Amino acid sequence: MDRRVKKIAILGSTGSVGRQTLDVVRSFPGEIEVVALCAGRNTGLLLQQVEEFRPSYYYCDPHAVNSVTPPRTGISRPPRTNGHSTATTTLPVQARALATEEIAVLPEVDIVVAAMSGSAGMGAVLAALKAGKTVALANKEPMVIAGESLMRTAKDRGGRILPVDSEPSAIWQCIQGEKSSPRKLFITASGGAFRDRTWGSLRDVTPAEALRHPTWQMGPKITVDSATLMNKAFEVIEARWLFGIPYEQIDVVVHRQSIIHSMVEFVDGSVKAQLAPPDLRYPIQYALFYPERRVNHTLPGFDPVKVGQLTFEAMRSSLYPCFEIAMDYARRGGTWPAVLAGADEAAVWMFLDGKARFTDMPDLVTKTLSRHVPNMKPSLDDAVAAAAWAFEETLKIRAVN
Amino acid sequence: MDRRVKKIAILGSTGSVGRQTLDVVRSFPGEIEVVALCAGRNTGLLLQQVEEFRPSYYYCDPHAVNSVTPPRTGISRPPRTNGHSTATTTLPVQARALATEEIAVLPEVDIVVAAMSGSAGMGAVLAALKAGKTVALANKEPMVIAGESLMRTAKDRGGRILPVDSEPSAIWQCIQGEKSSPRKLFITASGGAFRDRTWGSLRDVTPAEALRHPTWQMGPKITVDSATLMNKAFEVIEARWLFGIPYEQIDVVVHRQSIIHSMVEFVDGSVKAQLAPPDLRYPIQYALFYPERRVNHTLPGFDPVKVGQLTFEAMRSSLYPCFEIAMDYARRGGTWPAVLAGADEAAVWMFLDGKARFTDMPDLVTKTLSRHVPNMKPSLDDAVAAAAWAFEETLKIRAVN
Repeated sequence: MDRRVKKIAILGSTGSVGRQTLDVVRSFPGEIEVVALCAGRNTGLLLQQVEEFRPSYYYCDPHAVNSVTPPRTGISRPPRTNGHSTATTTLPVQARALATEEIAVLPEVDIVVAAMSGSAGMGAVLAALKAGKTVALANKEPMVIAGESLMRTAKDRGGRILPVDSEPSAIWQCIQGEKSSPRKLFITASGGAFRDRTWGSLRDVTPAEALRHPTWQMGPKITVDSATLMNKAFEVIEARWLFGIPYEQIDVVVHRQSIIHSMVEFVDGSVKAQLAPPDLRYPIQYALFYPERRVNHTLPGFDPVKVGQLTFEAMRSSLYPCFEIAMDYARRGGTWPAVLAGADEAAVWMFLDGKARFTDMPDLVTKTLSRHVPNMKPSLDDAVAAAAWAFEETLKIRAVN
Repeated sequence: MDRRVKKIAILGSTGSVGRQTLDVVRSFPGEIEVVALCAGRNTGLLLQQVEEFRPSYYYCDPHAVNSVTPPRTGISRPPRTNGHSTATTTLPVQARALATEEIAVLPEVDIVVAAMSGSAGMGAVLAALKAGKTVALANKEPMVIAGESLMRTAKDRGGRILPVDSEPSAIWQCIQGEKSSPRKLFITASGGAFRDRTWGSLRDVTPAEALRHPTWQMGPKITVDSATLMNKAFEVIEARWLFGIPYEQIDVVVHRQSIIHSMVEFVDGSVKAQLAPPDLRYPIQYALFYPERRVNHTLPGFDPVKVGQLTFEAMRSSLYPCFEIAMDYARRGGTWPAVLAGADEAAVWMFLDGKARFTDMPDLVTKTLSRHVPNMKPSLDDAVAAAAWAFEETLKIRAVN
């Protein structure tokens, strides 16, 4: 086994994925070296992390949205979509402050863990891929905005994109050692916070209610996206590019227990599933040590008898208009998915900030999509610009209903 | 992809696995050539098969038990345990009659499909492995009797043993591309025909009742072994040798739907499962084309929503004394598992032939085990002799209760 120390940089170290990545690092003393940590406004936690993990570099964005503090208590400014952050808050530590894009291309870094919320990590992800780095990608938005271009960049420059979220990691694990491309992907969905409600009853739900996910502990943006199933649409789009599978061959199935993280059907009809308790440290660790697997006794175990049953249900499309809109536009290609990602990001932050109702989100996204003039052969910059345009355009819309 | 024609010999072509293997052959015209067919007394079906598949060789055992005709209608003689059959019934066909062991070593055969019932295929399996052949092994008894020796023979002579049954095939599929050995195997069990009964209520069950398996269509020996879960113990023993996993790391879990065919837990705690409708053509096809997978539209598809739920239950050991006895003796090693296999084979045929009650079977097996003087370092011949001794010894026991 390759026991060389893995050298990583974490973009978004104080967020949910970042903290869990550091928890994995703690489980393997001497095996993973944290070269750099990048965070938003949570300087207190970043300071603690820097003291514990002694990185050589850090970045702290004084303008970023703090994804740890509950959003309702004070979102003053939404995150920038292009992610080109250069200003930094200087911390009283030995480590040197660097811009995120500089950290993403540090020669000593083996794996860039991109764990920023929403589209914030786009610039750094792109910089890392252009430098031929391996990017462990936790947030889907970069792949939604420019999946095809990012995959091409990775291929051209000798870099790699490794999925960190549980669903794409499940697919990735299931295709190991298989010679033929999958015939179908079954991406599982818990159904989110409101899976037993009807759309009509969701008009007055509060951000606090939307943030109560039944099976996963995650940051606010992705938790709201899970309640609308926009997150699941993003996973479909990500899987489309990550694994080169056409949309027609990707199904979403509601699986309440979040134990089966996805399933892959092969050309002979045989299906493989990956199972584990809903704990993001599983896919994080898999990406960090790939292709090795390592013992980690701090992870919860899987006991099929204790689990008892695994259920599958069809997705009720009437409950998830965001999913339907997203897949409709994703299939059109060009700049449409980028606009979808930008508009959704703004809509979610408007909801979390009390500027829009939960049920306004699909209307906000649709309105912005209706104003978009698509570019069907966009460059990566065109796609990023389209997402940024959609973000700003959506913020301009006053509450719809 | 390797599109060279696969040349196969099927031992037990008129049995359940044999017929399903030929069904797979039908789905791939021009891709699989049937070089030889071997069967028992079902000369009518063998004749049809020879006419359809035009093998160069055949073998027809005039003394073998007919596994197609319902057993109660006329079992006159139990199968020989050593499997060294030379007498043959001559069929009015172009193909040449050869002994099973000659067929197993034919130079033009790529894969020997060993699909005879019980221990009947032992001699031919051994001959094939000694000749460095790839053996697609459907019946577990050879591995129960002499798993360690067979694996060593395969390794020494450059042969291979590929599992054909659904559970070991599931494990085999799940470990593809994995660098580290599994931490645990979860072998699933439907629970058999009497899964909702108590042991005390099974005294008067008839062979016909025991042969009504809830999820699988199989031959009589294995179906009775499924009702007692002896079959599951055999699968544990087979997996122990096939995959080199100690018994402590193999669990059996009751899974009524027979959709998840087994699960593998890796060292990081992540679990992979293989799923498919309960249809033996899946694992047969996988073994024949391994490492390729091939499209076969005649196989039933998997629809998670239609399946609805997959359940797991602990095995009720009070309902399955045969399983408990089997695992107890399997763990002791030496000739014990061989005696177990031989005694069980006799007990099952005594039950099917009306010579013993269903609930007598564990007592018959136990009585024979109690009379055995073990050899803890048996050669392959010692193991085969122990199984043959146990078979004959058990037949001598009069109804116990």
